[in-house]
Formats: sequence, structure tokens, C-alpha cells
Amino acid sequence: MPKVSIKGQQMPESPIRKLVPYAEIAKKKGHKVYHLNIGQPDIKTPEVALQAVKNADISVLEYSHSAGFESYRTKLSQYYKNHGLPIDTQDIIITTGGSEALLFAMGSTMDAGEEIIIPEPFYANYNGFSTASGVKVVPVISGIETGFALPPIEAFKKLITPKTKAILICNPGNPTGYLYSKEEILKLAEIVKKHDLFLIADEVYREFIYDGEEHFSVMNVPGLEEHAIMIDSVSKRYSMCGARIGCIVSKNAAVMSTAMKFAQARLSPPTYAQIASEAALDTPQSYFDAVISEYKDRRDTLITELQKIEGITVATPKGAFYCIAKLPIDNADKFAQWLLESYDFNGETVMVAPAAGFYSTPNVGLDEVRIAYVLKKDDLIKSVQILKEAISVYNQK
Amino acid sequence: MPKVSIKGQQMPESPIRKLVPYAEIAKKKGHKVYHLNIGQPDIKTPEVALQAVKNADISVLEYSHSAGFESYRTKLSQYYKNHGLPIDTQDIIITTGGSEALLFAMGSTMDAGEEIIIPEPFYANYNGFSTASGVKVVPVISGIETGFALPPIEAFKKLITPKTKAILICNPGNPTGYLYSKEEILKLAEIVKKHDLFLIADEVYREFIYDGEEHFSVMNVPGLEEHAIMIDSVSKRYSMCGARIGCIVSKNAAVMSTAMKFAQARLSPPTYAQIASEAALDTPQSYFDAVISEYKDRRDTLITELQKIEGITVATPKGAFYCIAKLPIDNADKFAQWLLESYDFNGETVMVAPAAGFYSTPNVGLDEVRIAYVLKKDDLIKSVQILKEAISVYNQK
Repeated sequence: MPKVSIKGQQMPESPIRKLVPYAEIAKKKGHKVYHLNIGQPDIKTPEVALQAVKNADISVLEYSHSAGFESYRTKLSQYYKNHGLPIDTQDIIITTGGSEALLFAMGSTMDAGEEIIIPEPFYANYNGFSTASGVKVVPVISGIETGFALPPIEAFKKLITPKTKAILICNPGNPTGYLYSKEEILKLAEIVKKHDLFLIADEVYREFIYDGEEHFSVMNVPGLEEHAIMIDSVSKRYSMCGARIGCIVSKNAAVMSTAMKFAQARLSPPTYAQIASEAALDTPQSYFDAVISEYKDRRDTLITELQKIEGITVATPKGAFYCIAKLPIDNADKFAQWLLESYDFNGETVMVAPAAGFYSTPNVGLDEVRIAYVLKKDDLIKSVQILKEAISVYNQK
Repeated sequence: MPKVSIKGQQMPESPIRKLVPYAEIAKKKGHKVYHLNIGQPDIKTPEVALQAVKNADISVLEYSHSAGFESYRTKLSQYYKNHGLPIDTQDIIITTGGSEALLFAMGSTMDAGEEIIIPEPFYANYNGFSTASGVKVVPVISGIETGFALPPIEAFKKLITPKTKAILICNPGNPTGYLYSKEEILKLAEIVKKHDLFLIADEVYREFIYDGEEHFSVMNVPGLEEHAIMIDSVSKRYSMCGARIGCIVSKNAAVMSTAMKFAQARLSPPTYAQIASEAALDTPQSYFDAVISEYKDRRDTLITELQKIEGITVATPKGAFYCIAKLPIDNADKFAQWLLESYDFNGETVMVAPAAGFYSTPNVGLDEVRIAYVLKKDDLIKSVQILKEAISVYNQK
């Protein structure tokens, strides 16, 4: 029997998917499961996007341009300019989700065996895209005690080798909710310029910033034009995860013409989803105001409730809609499984994402979980109550 | 300045895209260009698919399952069974186009530096996916004199090395239109079993078969279950190229669980397009009958007209909607460029795809072009008339 590839064997399984069979068990028992584990928002997609698809007058559902609709790229460039980002139409290639943008970024800048430095904990699928690209992830650890701030720049310097091609950040961060300051971005800019590296910034949560803080993009650093690659997506901004539309953005012409070759090989991004995404750019500001206000409320509720749990440490997120909580338990993997398989509080339980899957270094974050605050306030309050009771029961076992 | 990857530099440019700037010149001159170069059909997408999207009651455009809608996979499995293919729901992962299915197939079965044997001429993007995967394409030449039949199996045997992991075929073929016979498929089955290889079959044109011939799928070979991987797509079947929905199909459980890890990393295939694709399965047989009849007519018209050109050789396609024509000219690349840049017949010209881009071996097929018969009959007749005149003018230069 022919064997699967070594690369395929090494592809990581999603840290959340591993729990799915246990969630099935909970559901079979008739238990209600609150999903704190996923980044699928319950926020409504803007009506203007949904209506555009309904109203689209399509007779032949054709390929689009490999870089995406010209009209969409132009309008998107204007969106960025309105948000203070000097991005032109030709700096944008529309991709099938932020996922494909990351694949194009890695494929365009890195060869098999080369290295990418990523502050951990990081979005678990960075491991998948790196493995698929044959690229080695070199983690640099950030800790809950600093709220997952940028590690000291010395820690990056120590990890740079002749094989290092890029530093990858997620800003604001999934799973940490940390928002890098302008100073932190400038420090990264300095080091990538000095060592001739790319700085790839996953900025898909850019609009989700609380407490009056401001997002500082890698696209806003003067002199970083040849180094900066921005990854973006409509998934979270417009609660359109199922569209699968993102983009890769760079002022580096060689990177863009290389990414374009990858884009041409897969022909085009999905047409319906581009119609929705282009229309979504007309979403009124009131939509965002309501959404951000809702998320801020949820965050405040979640953090307030979590802090009532004795022995918990939680970093207050400044952006996105995740936080990492360090629980007073031995092992979050076992705990998360137990929550689904063996526990219920009046017929209800919670599903959390064990944080170890967001670290590349083994045996780190074993007592941490990622909590997504994509549920309504009342459900968040109930969920944390269940979590609190569960921890107490679990530790008395 | 940081450099793009070597892999990125090696990514081939589409053989058609190279001509795009020249097509722009023709259009600027006000010339009408008949596109014989692309596989974008003008056939209407089934109304049932378009209406399903219009009628979809979506409030939050959510991620789907990474393997695609369960309901779609089940219904698709039934479609295959109705067509005599023993494919179950769990043998299918829905992908973003046949393109992603090919990437998953290569990623799941091959590591960097390994080899895949492909009869040439072949679909040019196989080169792109191979380069992106770090895989080496080993071509085995098929010729216009045999109508692009399967090369002698001895030719394959000679190319098998310890690095060979798979043989890839396109059946019926783009760009050749050749339909492999049952005997040819069985010969390939024998050799992949003997040498423990995968047989990857791109069968996206399965429904486009003329003259009462029958398609024989790799999924129909008893004993080939662990070796066979089928690539499929809705793009051509329902004239839905812009949906970007395809699938990877295999009975090999290790291949499927590996492909699933790639699928999870990119989260999910596009939701709107899955709604359209699932609904498209209800397309009435009358739609296909009309489409196949239309293509057969176009093919017959095209071949009849082409054969009026003195010195031409053309292999009559048995399936798909392409043919390769060997023209009485020195170089098809130069000729195709000249057609757009410098030629017109009463203000009209044609765009063809030079076939050299479909060969992996250098300097082969230099006087051949691929012609897609995706235009209406009258336009095909006009196009060939222009081509005939053009060849005569070109050779008198």
C-alpha cells in the first residue's frame, strides 16, 4: 500500500477538533454545551452583503480575475486609505480566506527548511501552514504575566539564523487578545530591516480594539515597505467566516508578482463571496459601533466573571475576541475532555480550547485555556459559573 | 531587501496570461478578439443552483465543516453511485475548486524532492501545484499522431525511480480532449499496484464525452482502492467555474485523514458556493443532454473547419472541450502574439493558447496550439476562418 507523505503525517491536528468526539458524547447525554472554544461569531452579517448576493444578476458563474475583482480591490484600497493605511489597488491580491493569504505569503518568501519566528501562543493553524510549506516554526515565548506583550527584542535576536526568513505576528492576537503598541511594532521593524527579513502581520482583527486604544499596522511604518506583508480577511470584520475571502497586501513588488503566480495556479477566489465582500465595504459605521460595543461588554463581563474564580490568572484582552486564562488545574487537555465527557451542572457544560495547542514549545501552557467571547452576555455568565463549579469538582476528585 | 523564495521564482507563469498584454493591445486597436484560449464556458449555470443561493436564508455567514456540508457530501456520493461510482460520503472532502483538491492530493502523498509522472501535454497548472509542493514533474510524452493516447506502459516503467510516488492523469484530458479507454486505465492500475504508487485522476470533464463513448473512472478498478485518488469539480459540469468547489475522493483512509488535516488548516470551503453546488445536483438530465449536444456540435464544427486549413494536424477530441492543433507555422508563441499585436481580419482576430506551455519537456509542441471550443458555432466558424487567413499572411511575411 502506498504511504502518505511525511509532511502529511506531520501536519498538526487542530487542538479544538480533538475535542469534537467528546462534545458529541455530551450532546448524546442531552447536555447543553456552551461553546467558548471557537472563533465563529454569532454577530449578524451586514445586510448589505447578504442582499448583494441575493440581487446579483448571474447567468454564468464565471472565474474572476486571479487577483480578485478589480472593482473590489479598488474599493478595498479606499477602505484602507480611509483607515489611514496607504494601500493601493496593486498592493492587494484577493485570496480564499486569510488562510490562503498566509499560504501565499509563506510560499512567496520561504523555501523548505527555512525558518519563521512567531511569538507564542499563536493561532494554531500557523503550524499547519508552516508544515504544508515545509517551513520550520521557531517560537519565542510570551507570557500571561505580561499580558502576552511582545517578548524582549533580544529574545528574537537570539533566534535569528541564516535560515530565518520572516517574523510572523498576529495583531491584535488570536489567542491572546494582545494589541501590540506602536513602539513594539517599530522594534520589530528595526530588527527585520537589520536582518533583511520579512515582517508578516496577520491583522484580521484590526477593527476589534477596545478602550480607545489604536491599532498600528505594519503598513504604517515608513521604510518598511519592502519587508511588510499584511494578511487580512472579511471573516471577523463582517462576521462572514463562511465567505472565505481575505487578501495579501504588500508594497514589495517582487512579493506581489510571486504571490500572483500562486494565485494564477488556483485560478480565482470564489465569485459569490467576492460579491458579498465588495458590498460589505458599504456597511454603515453604526454596524461596527454596535458590534464593538457588544464585544467590549462581553469582554468586560467575561473578565469580571472569570476573576471571581479562585486561583485563576487572566490577561485582559485589548482586542480581538479571545483571552487566555490560566486555570487552577493540572492539565487543561484532560480538564476540557472531562468537562464534556463526565461533567454537567444542571445538564449544562462548557467547551474550552486547551491552550497547549497554541504553543509550539512542548509542555508550555498546559494549565491554560483559550476562551472566545463570541456568546451573548447571559450565556457567558452562565458558562463561567459552570466553569467555576467544574474546577471545584474536578480538583476534589 | 529580503528576497522572494526560490520556489516562488520557479513558479511557472500561466502560458495564457503571458498573452494578456497583447490581447490588451488588440482591444486598444478596437479589434474584436475571439477567445479560443480559455476554458471558461459560455454555457448558462443551472437555474436551480443560482436560485438556491438567492433563496438561501442566511443571517450569519458561518464556516462550514472543513470537509464540506455533510448534506452535500451525502448527496454527491449518491450522484456518483447513480453514475456507477462506488463512492461513500466519507470518501469525499469538499475543496475550494479542483485546484485545492490537487494541492491536498500532492501534499498528502508527496514530500519535497519526490516525483510524479504525468503524460504530457498536460493542464499547465499541474506544474504550479507541483512547484508549490516542491514535487518534481517527470513527463512522459504523448503525441498528436496517436491522438494523445496513453504512451506505451514501458515508457512509464522506464521513468519510475525510488522517488516516484504517483502517476497523474487528466481523463478526459485538458488540453488534449483524449479519453482513456478502460484498457489504458487498467494498464495504469497494474503498474501503480506493482510499484506501490498512487494513481491520481483528474476527472473534472467526466460528463463531457461524445460519440457514445463511456468514461471509465479510476474509482471503478477493483483492487485499486488504496491507490486511486480522484479529483473532481463543479466548474465545468455546471458551468460554475467561479464557485470554486471541487473535491478529493479516495477509499484510502490514510490519504483521507491526511487530506483532512490540510482541510482543517484552511478551515472550510466557501459556504455560498457549497449551497449552489449542492443544489446543482438537482439539475435535470435535459440540461446535460442539451449541453453535451451543444459541445458535440461545436466540436464537429471546429474540427471540420480546422481540417480545411492546409498543413494542419488535429486530433479529434473524444471528451472535454479542448483540442490540440499542430499548425503549419514555425513557432506558436510568436504566432499567437502576432495574431493579437499585429494582425486583424476585418477588425477581428483570435487568441489561442500556445501548446508549449502544456508540455514539461522543453522545445516540444512549439508549433501546436490548444483551442477551447467554448464559443458558439458561428463564432467558431469565424474564428477558424480568421486563423486560416492569418496563417497564410504569417507565412508570407
